[in-house]
Amino acid sequence: MGRGGRRWRVLHLTVLAAGLLAIAISSIDGLPIWTDDVLTAIVVLVAVVFFGEYLVRLWAAPESNRFAGLSDGMARLRWALSINGLIGLLAVFPVLAITFSSIHAGNEWAPIFCVFWILKLSVHAPAMTTLARVIANERATLASVVIIFVMVLVTAAALAHMLERELQPKVFGNIPESLWWAVVTLTTTGYGDVVPKTVGGRMVGSLVMVSGIVVLALLTGILATGFSEEERRREYLRVWDQVTRVPMFAELGTVTLSEIVSKLRVRHYPPRIVVVRRDEPGDSMFFISEGEVEVRLPRGSVALRQGGFFGEMALLDRLPRSATVVTTQPTTLLVLYASDFYEVAANIPSLVEAVEREARRRRAENQGAPAKVETP
Amino acid sequence: MGRGGRRWRVLHLTVLAAGLLAIAISSIDGLPIWTDDVLTAIVVLVAVVFFGEYLVRLWAAPESNRFAGLSDGMARLRWALSINGLIGLLAVFPVLAITFSSIHAGNEWAPIFCVFWILKLSVHAPAMTTLARVIANERATLASVVIIFVMVLVTAAALAHMLERELQPKVFGNIPESLWWAVVTLTTTGYGDVVPKTVGGRMVGSLVMVSGIVVLALLTGILATGFSEEERRREYLRVWDQVTRVPMFAELGTVTLSEIVSKLRVRHYPPRIVVVRRDEPGDSMFFISEGEVEVRLPRGSVALRQGGFFGEMALLDRLPRSATVVTTQPTTLLVLYASDFYEVAANIPSLVEAVEREARRRRAENQGAPAKVETP
Amino acid sequence: MGRGGRRWRVLHLTVLAAGLLAIAISSIDGLPIWTDDVLTAIVVLVAVVFFGEYLVRLWAAPESNRFAGLSDGMARLRWALSINGLIGLLAVFPVLAITFSSIHAGNEWAPIFCVFWILKLSVHAPAMTTLARVIANERATLASVVIIFVMVLVTAAALAHMLERELQPKVFGNIPESLWWAVVTLTTTGYGDVVPKTVGGRMVGSLVMVSGIVVLALLTGILATGFSEEERRREYLRVWDQVTRVPMFAELGTVTLSEIVSKLRVRHYPPRIVVVRRDEPGDSMFFISEGEVEVRLPRGSVALRQGGFFGEMALLDRLPRSATVVTTQPTTLLVLYASDFYEVAANIPSLVEAVEREARRRRAENQGAPAKVETP
Amino acid sequence: MGRGGRRWRVLHLTVLAAGLLAIAISSIDGLPIWTDDVLTAIVVLVAVVFFGEYLVRLWAAPESNRFAGLSDGMARLRWALSINGLIGLLAVFPVLAITFSSIHAGNEWAPIFCVFWILKLSVHAPAMTTLARVIANERATLASVVIIFVMVLVTAAALAHMLERELQPKVFGNIPESLWWAVVTLTTTGYGDVVPKTVGGRMVGSLVMVSGIVVLALLTGILATGFSEEERRREYLRVWDQVTRVPMFAELGTVTLSEIVSKLRVRHYPPRIVVVRRDEPGDSMFFISEGEVEVRLPRGSVALRQGGFFGEMALLDRLPRSATVVTTQPTTLLVLYASDFYEVAANIPSLVEAVEREARRRRAENQGAPAKVETP
Repeated sequence: MGRGGRRWRVLHLTVLAAGLLAIAISSIDGLPIWTDDVLTAIVVLVAVVFFGEYLVRLWAAPESNRFAGLSDGMARLRWALSINGLIGLLAVFPVLAITFSSIHAGNEWAPIFCVFWILKLSVHAPAMTTLARVIANERATLASVVIIFVMVLVTAAALAHMLERELQPKVFGNIPESLWWAVVTLTTTGYGDVVPKTVGGRMVGSLVMVSGIVVLALLTGILATGFSEEERRREYLRVWDQVTRVPMFAELGTVTLSEIVSKLRVRHYPPRIVVVRRDEPGDSMFFISEGEVEVRLPRGSVALRQGGFFGEMALLDRLPRSATVVTTQPTTLLVLYASDFYEVAANIPSLVEAVEREARRRRAENQGAPAKVETP
Repeated sequence: MGRGGRRWRVLHLTVLAAGLLAIAISSIDGLPIWTDDVLTAIVVLVAVVFFGEYLVRLWAAPESNRFAGLSDGMARLRWALSINGLIGLLAVFPVLAITFSSIHAGNEWAPIFCVFWILKLSVHAPAMTTLARVIANERATLASVVIIFVMVLVTAAALAHMLERELQPKVFGNIPESLWWAVVTLTTTGYGDVVPKTVGGRMVGSLVMVSGIVVLALLTGILATGFSEEERRREYLRVWDQVTRVPMFAELGTVTLSEIVSKLRVRHYPPRIVVVRRDEPGDSMFFISEGEVEVRLPRGSVALRQGGFFGEMALLDRLPRSATVVTTQPTTLLVLYASDFYEVAANIPSLVEAVEREARRRRAENQGAPAKVETP
Repeated sequence: MGRGGRRWRVLHLTVLAAGLLAIAISSIDGLPIWTDDVLTAIVVLVAVVFFGEYLVRLWAAPESNRFAGLSDGMARLRWALSINGLIGLLAVFPVLAITFSSIHAGNEWAPIFCVFWILKLSVHAPAMTTLARVIANERATLASVVIIFVMVLVTAAALAHMLERELQPKVFGNIPESLWWAVVTLTTTGYGDVVPKTVGGRMVGSLVMVSGIVVLALLTGILATGFSEEERRREYLRVWDQVTRVPMFAELGTVTLSEIVSKLRVRHYPPRIVVVRRDEPGDSMFFISEGEVEVRLPRGSVALRQGGFFGEMALLDRLPRSATVVTTQPTTLLVLYASDFYEVAANIPSLVEAVEREARRRRAENQGAPAKVETP
Repeated sequence: MGRGGRRWRVLHLTVLAAGLLAIAISSIDGLPIWTDDVLTAIVVLVAVVFFGEYLVRLWAAPESNRFAGLSDGMARLRWALSINGLIGLLAVFPVLAITFSSIHAGNEWAPIFCVFWILKLSVHAPAMTTLARVIANERATLASVVIIFVMVLVTAAALAHMLERELQPKVFGNIPESLWWAVVTLTTTGYGDVVPKTVGGRMVGSLVMVSGIVVLALLTGILATGFSEEERRREYLRVWDQVTRVPMFAELGTVTLSEIVSKLRVRHYPPRIVVVRRDEPGDSMFFISEGEVEVRLPRGSVALRQGGFFGEMALLDRLPRSATVVTTQPTTLLVLYASDFYEVAANIPSLVEAVEREARRRRAENQGAPAKVETP
């Protein structure tokens, strides 16, 4: 994401927060009359900004990657009907509601605006896609957990109703009431508004609580397994996208490359961030796939651009960092950890050679034209 | 599962939900008298449907795979005594109870029908077998966690009883009462109906709460480890069942094949589902092991049947999808992710060749007979 | 564990349960006087049984594996000072307390007997050793989680005390009182006996709750990682102990063997258990390392002893089981799952050959002497 | 950490505990007047000790590894501005506050000292760095979980406010009030001070509880995955630092070595600790990278120093330990488990040879000069 992107994100989140805050404040009773006008104005303003965003996005839809092959009109229609398009439309609804009806901030229906707006947050959570894929991949297993959950709920509610209705007709008097108790207990929330008092009811309750922690453990196990596999796949694709921009990897064959790709990690840095600090111990080397860094050596600074690498001494000689390295632009680095470097080296001796050769070449170059492309 | 299977499932779940709902409503007090007759009728109807299901399943038992070698009578007896047979019989009980006695919906014993019926849900949760195997495999370790659980419970109840009985004789007055508090606390449910008030009691309570989160963490760790291993094994068998239907894998030796099998994933799709969408980025290729898909190219549609594959360009050239692919029948696909493709390629160069050769062959074929078997 | 061992375990647990139950009942107020005598008698009896167990174990200590090299007296002293020895002594204490003082079941100090006795449960939880090793291995990381836990507790208690003492001087009036609230909140137990009411206090409370789920997630992550590694190591040793009893593995070299050992699983079966059932699909083969099984073929039964294997057809030909196999003695089997068989086969082609050769040899033998050593 | 280091740690923790306890006690109402003076004295003393520590650390900053290349003044300034420096300064604040103003133990602002001091605990939690790196590495995914958390919170608060405000205007009367309920429910704390009572509100509440356990499961999955990977990397570096001190590994090539490094585990032992006990079964061998151990054989004791190894018979011959081994100094050992030994052996036959050769060499040496460097 470039500088413009980050500025846009901050602005978007600020507008969103302002809107939600205005609605939240307007729901408080006993505020002076004039605040209602101010808050309504803020809500309208926020909705107008979102309306503008909606129009811009609708207009720009044909340029989007996803609708590349379609005619302009079709691309816009498709975007309008996509999830993002519909969320965008819902977020605009408040301005219409306030303009054309008596709904305003402070009105009893205003809190629903919060729900429309908070959905826009999902744009800022790219990992939500990962989550959706995990749920899709594990849907058979998750469905079984949901079925276990429902079976425990219904059984518990029916039994607790039978055992407790005599003593507590108000809260266990019918099965729907009992279900509320069962949900509160199975999730181990335990409000305490409904509590079994007979010996039988307490036994049922104990089993429900234990089932609750078993269900939680199962759910965690399934999601953790699926999540870790999905993350591995996404990271692999992210690295593959970046690795082709580093010339020294281009020399390697596909097979060797695919081995390395699974060991590299992608890290995005904004400008003016210290990546490594002189004299600190290091456990990784870095390849620049995008952007530029400044290597601050004692006798002056050196710029390293796309395709360059630094930090290899920490891996080859286990020495502390010999220079501080700072990003000068938004920069993407590929990180290779020491633990993986030697694992890779065991299978692919050519990598060690390549790194050493490149390092030697640069040093030689540096002696002819001093302090130009030295690496820390 | 075919179309009939899916329809049957929807019907079965609807009948089940209707029955449970009727019982739940009939437990509410103060309903008009006539509702009782209506609800009793629904309950009888649901039980009759389940009775019919029971008879059909009993009759069909000899055709089932599991009882293939037995005589018809023996196969039916064996099914009747299996877990599914017994659950089926229990679900029929309500109709007998209503016909031959004074029990009806609204009666105080009716809620127990819920418990009989909800067990039928387990038929729709195939992953419950996985769960059962995980518990069987890890039973030694799980037993130890249960023992830790019981040890903490009894110790906590005895100590809390000794420390709190003076101040709160009503709720800590004897050990069984104290046990209820211990369960509620150890599962971190915390109703708040019983709360220690002495300094000693609160210290014991704090330790019980901390033990609670440790027990949960242990349980999660054990189940997560066992679950991930069991899932790997089941997926392997699922893939092995499918992979032999794809001719191009049949050419490979067993050793190469077993390497590939552990990297493939099975996905079942109903008809009319978009598998890949034109212009979207892709990270996987697909082999058809059952069913048929329609490849929607700009100049017309093409059908791909069992043994075909598509999506390989996303892996070979890292291009976006060149066509939309939609299933026309219930279809089973084998998915190979990019991250695994190159891993496999590193060990088995022949796969890359095979995919490339097959792709080249098809293109050549297509030039003779245009737009027949092209792949996206 | 042999038959005697299992009988002993059931007896031991029954005695333990009887003792705990007697104490629990005696703590209930308002029982008739005569029950006190009966319950005291039961408690004394249980303690006497445990005293007998203590003496037997003390006597048998020199025969134990652990103290093999020591003189008899030293071995007994060492056992008496070991954890199990001390627990054994504590469990005997009640009989002394009742005999030599006025303490009896129903007395206010009797509940402490529960705590002494429940410790004996740990003998039945062999996986507790695994747990202890995991905690020892991860102690540095776990200590950090405990430190985070304490830091959040103290900070939360101090801040909540400052923010809430005005409004709720009774429950937030001093820091020790506040700490109780902090523990109840951080473990997400949430009794509700102490609840912050100021805006500041609620913000602190919200952060504590969120910290609570983060701490739980961390703890789970650490224990799950450590547990899965420790289980792998223990299983490896268990298999290694068994694998040398199977002659066909003895032919393999150490390197090949160590590859196989990591893929096998040990399963202990009591007698008369169905291991595989005819006509069911199979995903594993079995090697007998101890005991005996009966293979029930249509034309008669066959016994297989130590060193034999069965179920290989499910792996080689993917057919359903051709016979039911039942254990006739306590039997230890080594399981090889299909998913691992082919993985092993990819690295060690000799295994497939060995299994096929052995299977062929047996069939040939069977034709000479029919129905003697056929495998399902 | 040497002996001095451990003594310092115990002292530091004692002073810290004394300070926190003094503040905690002083917050209790109704103490006699004179206690205030005593407690104030303790608080001042603790702050003075921390002041001394601050000065010593500031003075010693130039000798620290991190600031090796800087001038003395710069190094001190840099340390003063580092996190540890600022925490050190904050911990000194109480003594200034008490000296120059009317604040003293028992004063209403004193509890804030707890917060300043408890931060010093973080010095004793080295794994906190691991934790910080995990959070940094997984920040994109964790941010998405936080966004899901906020979305559920705001949606739940807005909906519950709309559904419950009629019935319970006091606790659901405005959105900020509703948010408190949403946090308490989403973290499954469930105080029970605010509970929905309408059917709609309870449905929203049920969904929030279920979301709560899903969020916890996700968080656990992410942290567990990241944690296990980070631990692997740190352990690799720890082993790499130690492995070069063992001469027999120095003979191996880098590639072979990197394979072994990933299988070894580092364990630090204080003096006089029993590492292995005679006659117990063993599953690991040990290499000494620092310190010294005493091997207690039947005919006398033998010292083993840096570079030595012991316990190899447990791996080669699967025999119980033939000697007890006790540390005589703070000692660092590299552990190789049986499960990993054979895995390594499968890839690197030279290791088995090296261990066997070394063992043979020693035995030969021992026969010339008996009982000198024998290993158990």
